Amino acid sequence: MKPIYPTPDKAGLTTSLTGLDAKGQPVTIPVVTERPLTIFLNRQEVVTAMTLGDQPEALAVGFLRNQNMLTADDEITAIDVDDELAVVVVRTARATDYEDKLQKKIRTSGCAQGTLYGDIMDQFDEVTLPKGPQVKASTLYQLSAAINAIPSLYLKAGAIHGCALATDETPLLYLEDIGRHNAVDKIAGHMFLQAISGADKIFYTTGRLTTEMVIKTVLMGIPILVSRSGFTEAGVSLARQAGLTLVGRMRGARFTVLSGAERIIFDDIREEVKQEKSSAQSAQLGGRER
Amino acid sequence: MKPIYPTPDKAGLTTSLTGLDAKGQPVTIPVVTERPLTIFLNRQEVVTAMTLGDQPEALAVGFLRNQNMLTADDEITAIDVDDELAVVVVRTARATDYEDKLQKKIRTSGCAQGTLYGDIMDQFDEVTLPKGPQVKASTLYQLSAAINAIPSLYLKAGAIHGCALATDETPLLYLEDIGRHNAVDKIAGHMFLQAISGADKIFYTTGRLTTEMVIKTVLMGIPILVSRSGFTEAGVSLARQAGLTLVGRMRGARFTVLSGAERIIFDDIREEVKQEKSSAQSAQLGGRER
Repeated sequence: MKPIYPTPDKAGLTTSLTGLDAKGQPVTIPVVTERPLTIFLNRQEVVTAMTLGDQPEALAVGFLRNQNMLTADDEITAIDVDDELAVVVVRTARATDYEDKLQKKIRTSGCAQGTLYGDIMDQFDEVTLPKGPQVKASTLYQLSAAINAIPSLYLKAGAIHGCALATDETPLLYLEDIGRHNAVDKIAGHMFLQAISGADKIFYTTGRLTTEMVIKTVLMGIPILVSRSGFTEAGVSLARQAGLTLVGRMRGARFTVLSGAERIIFDDIREEVKQEKSSAQSAQLGGRER
Repeated sequence: MKPIYPTPDKAGLTTSLTGLDAKGQPVTIPVVTERPLTIFLNRQEVVTAMTLGDQPEALAVGFLRNQNMLTADDEITAIDVDDELAVVVVRTARATDYEDKLQKKIRTSGCAQGTLYGDIMDQFDEVTLPKGPQVKASTLYQLSAAINAIPSLYLKAGAIHGCALATDETPLLYLEDIGRHNAVDKIAGHMFLQAISGADKIFYTTGRLTTEMVIKTVLMGIPILVSRSGFTEAGVSLARQAGLTLVGRMRGARFTVLSGAERIIFDDIREEVKQEKSSAQSAQLGGRER
């Protein structure tokens, strides 16, 4: 499939704003867009998300899929986007009604964010992740370096999260959003719309490895989750429960794996030395995570 | 008042977890706690937040205050915390019922996160921020350096957000949480419980300057908002509308102000040179924000 990467120069995703620097001198910088998007499933308003605004179809489908309001075998009959109204409507062959479910929201952690619904954990317990694939440590940090090198809103304006889906060191999907949860949902949306299986994939995120991130990755059927950021104890605990490979604090050729290390092949040290250089470089892009 | 700072070594806030590093060698690291806390206002369940778990009283009061479910003149008669049930109940002299309000949630951006309710913007439009105070640029980066030097879960374990309230280069309140919104709410909670006015304060956050962050700061009556992270266009637009001083990308002696620059005194350049050194240092703590 054709890879999907960020389009940092696309109109509407950033605005040039002028202000002053610390010396009181005028400065103009690109600033990312943040706008509301209300997601409907058929006749039902589900949520209003603040988002970058690109890829509303993928965001809506992925959000609904990750909430299991869209099931794996649902047939999408139409996706209508109204930019004026900032509304996206996903229509399915199956009649849907989640009024009860919509009453039971859980407000999740910081960057993990988002809105989780009560019955999600039931699905989580049912998932069995594939034993494989095995991935080389060097592939993981080559993937990380590749993502840091792809032109993005992150490199252009910062203040944004990114997620990527890959089978090796080259991302198949790399999507960004103000909200990390939105970036994750966009990935899930493309996976659903293009019938991409998670079973042989690596999921890379810039955000922290919290419960919501782990739950979504497992529900997406992806066995390996990698982040440049750190862990929460509950996130690690869920990952170990599900047998998810959880790799955090990815910096250059350094990382920490706290769950599912059996899927990682700890290969050549030489590779690391080379990577350490690009690590110093990428340190300018991201220090210790928040 | 006695300053309130993080307690990184307090039991229960971190757990030591063992895994492998990129060379396959065993490594043990501290990982922050993430746990659910359900907030009740009198008889009504309002929200379940995933949180660090410290300061449930301040978090609950601040959350309710920032949602305007607790009004400025409400009298809190009791705050009951049940650690077993992970529940905090805030009781008020006034009888409350926000059933309608609870139906109307907006899912907000990434780290800004949280749950905003429909009528919040009405309050936002009514707020008039004080003209003052004026603050020196050097005070802002001394404050930033001070926050980076105070022992914290961020320095110990990472993967956490921090917020601080100050009148000068020394924070009065510095609180952390998995969720930035929770850290903000904890500040609001202490402000309410100790009757601290926002009118002469500087609000520092590690997170991005999104709409929710700007809205909450304005509703808290704080005229100056500073972040080590970046901006969203909508956040800047709301700040300009409210006359909020919005300072972002604070790194060492560098920052960008995109709104309300009249409250900033651009003082001595010499100070900057000195600060540039500590900037290199703090660059290790935080690079480009997500």
